[in-house]
Amino acid sequence: MNDRPSDTTLATKPHLVSPPEWTSAIRPSVDAALDAFIDRAEMPDSLRAAVRYAATSGGKRVRPILSWACSEAVGGLGEASLPAGVAVELIHAFSLVHDDLPSLDDDDLRRGRPTLHRHAGEAMAVLAGDAMLTLAFQAIDAIDTPTLRDRLRDDLVRGTMGMIGGQVYDTLGTLPEGLTDREKLETVHRGKTGALLKASCLMGARCGGADNRSLQAVSDYAESIGLLFQIVDDLIDVEQSDEHVGKRTGKDADAGKRTYPGVLGIKASRTAADDFLESACRAARGLAKHERLEGFARYLRVRTK
Amino acid sequence: MNDRPSDTTLATKPHLVSPPEWTSAIRPSVDAALDAFIDRAEMPDSLRAAVRYAATSGGKRVRPILSWACSEAVGGLGEASLPAGVAVELIHAFSLVHDDLPSLDDDDLRRGRPTLHRHAGEAMAVLAGDAMLTLAFQAIDAIDTPTLRDRLRDDLVRGTMGMIGGQVYDTLGTLPEGLTDREKLETVHRGKTGALLKASCLMGARCGGADNRSLQAVSDYAESIGLLFQIVDDLIDVEQSDEHVGKRTGKDADAGKRTYPGVLGIKASRTAADDFLESACRAARGLAKHERLEGFARYLRVRTK
Repeated sequence: MNDRPSDTTLATKPHLVSPPEWTSAIRPSVDAALDAFIDRAEMPDSLRAAVRYAATSGGKRVRPILSWACSEAVGGLGEASLPAGVAVELIHAFSLVHDDLPSLDDDDLRRGRPTLHRHAGEAMAVLAGDAMLTLAFQAIDAIDTPTLRDRLRDDLVRGTMGMIGGQVYDTLGTLPEGLTDREKLETVHRGKTGALLKASCLMGARCGGADNRSLQAVSDYAESIGLLFQIVDDLIDVEQSDEHVGKRTGKDADAGKRTYPGVLGIKASRTAADDFLESACRAARGLAKHERLEGFARYLRVRTK
Repeated sequence: MNDRPSDTTLATKPHLVSPPEWTSAIRPSVDAALDAFIDRAEMPDSLRAAVRYAATSGGKRVRPILSWACSEAVGGLGEASLPAGVAVELIHAFSLVHDDLPSLDDDDLRRGRPTLHRHAGEAMAVLAGDAMLTLAFQAIDAIDTPTLRDRLRDDLVRGTMGMIGGQVYDTLGTLPEGLTDREKLETVHRGKTGALLKASCLMGARCGGADNRSLQAVSDYAESIGLLFQIVDDLIDVEQSDEHVGKRTGKDADAGKRTYPGVLGIKASRTAADDFLESACRAARGLAKHERLEGFARYLRVRTK
């Protein structure tokens, strides 16, 4: 399990799979909302520079794009989801900064650049992570209705706590007894990756005015793409090069971490990914406008970075 | 500025000054609310143990006690402030855990015991700090009214961001240009200590049903005791022993940090502390029931740990 696959046929040639075209039209709005929020927030200039470095450069904006698409899928406007999108992207960025710290994953490279603690020092990385986590709860202020803001806060807490819990399981390995290897793996990932993706979808759907039935479909969709996202991440980690991905690959196996390819093998991991894709599409078809959510799930299946 | 005071008359003998008696009656309610909240919150057991270690053992509960007293001072019930008290204590506990990390203050001892990273490892300390920060926003759920929850979230964001900003200034020293030494010092402390004390008071007052005039008086009170709290902390750091205080003293001067005694001298620091106490009492007298707030400010002036 500690060796990279030696069968070279497994190492597919890097090829760039682009996100669906409609996401390119959304991304500038997401980036502008994120930039404007970070510009306006009250904090020391040095902290703002660190937050901007970590949150606004590179990255695929998967979570805000999902918020947007889920708002539209329930019949709302995509723009209405932007406060939720800013919030979930800040949580995501905070988690990367803290997970990259020497005492956790000890990564030097992120999104093709030095990680924040390599760029600005470890003290700043700890504090900027704390700030981004806090600012996520402020990002919700851009929502007009106090009761909606209140619900979004609740989603954000659940998503963030699930993510931190998953990271505790992953890094410190104190999983509940009596689980199979696959159950252990999915307990980690439902937390580490799934919880915030679910929050991103639910928050977007709420911003779009979702009723309870739609929220359930969005929740089902989000759970499937959460595991899909992770299984594909694990496959990328063994199948792609550092240069292509922009961060160190092969590190999960090197670190002896439990991964889908490690537990199921590469072929069965691919089949499992196909199954999650199918569940996601089935859930999406319960919504008013499901094409974009289906398309995005399909992109998550075939992405190579 | 890097030497401890050599004049031994400055080193007053440690004597225990107890908080006002009414705080002893409140503290069990605060501790029970904090325990119950941590018990109920959803997270891995190992994370819960770390959160409990950091948040519930030792400590003076200054912030929840202030929330309680401010709720009463505006004519509300003390108990109504407990969700706010749990939230601000979690933020305080998170900030201690992250500030103690090797990359920040590098402290081994806190509240007379090993700091969390010495006890449970640095990875867990980072993650437990993140969890406590997040859980603070969940603690507000115990409030019945969505609009009140929403306002408390806003206070909590401001208090936490102010605190992190103060810590950035203190640790990384990137203060705005053109300030005097005292202004620099107070910019640090209005953030690092003052912002969360202010949030504690405002949140308590809101839970007690404060009107805008009362909120202003509570805000003025909080700003004065924030600086009072810090100036006394600085005096304790030079005047008291490690054994008495339960953490390493003299470290501010050793680290070359800007402190009130370092900037003003010990005598003028004491006078400044008296001035802050007077301002605090004046502000408190604008409230319906001010005796406890005045008494607490007086305790903050004379405490020796």
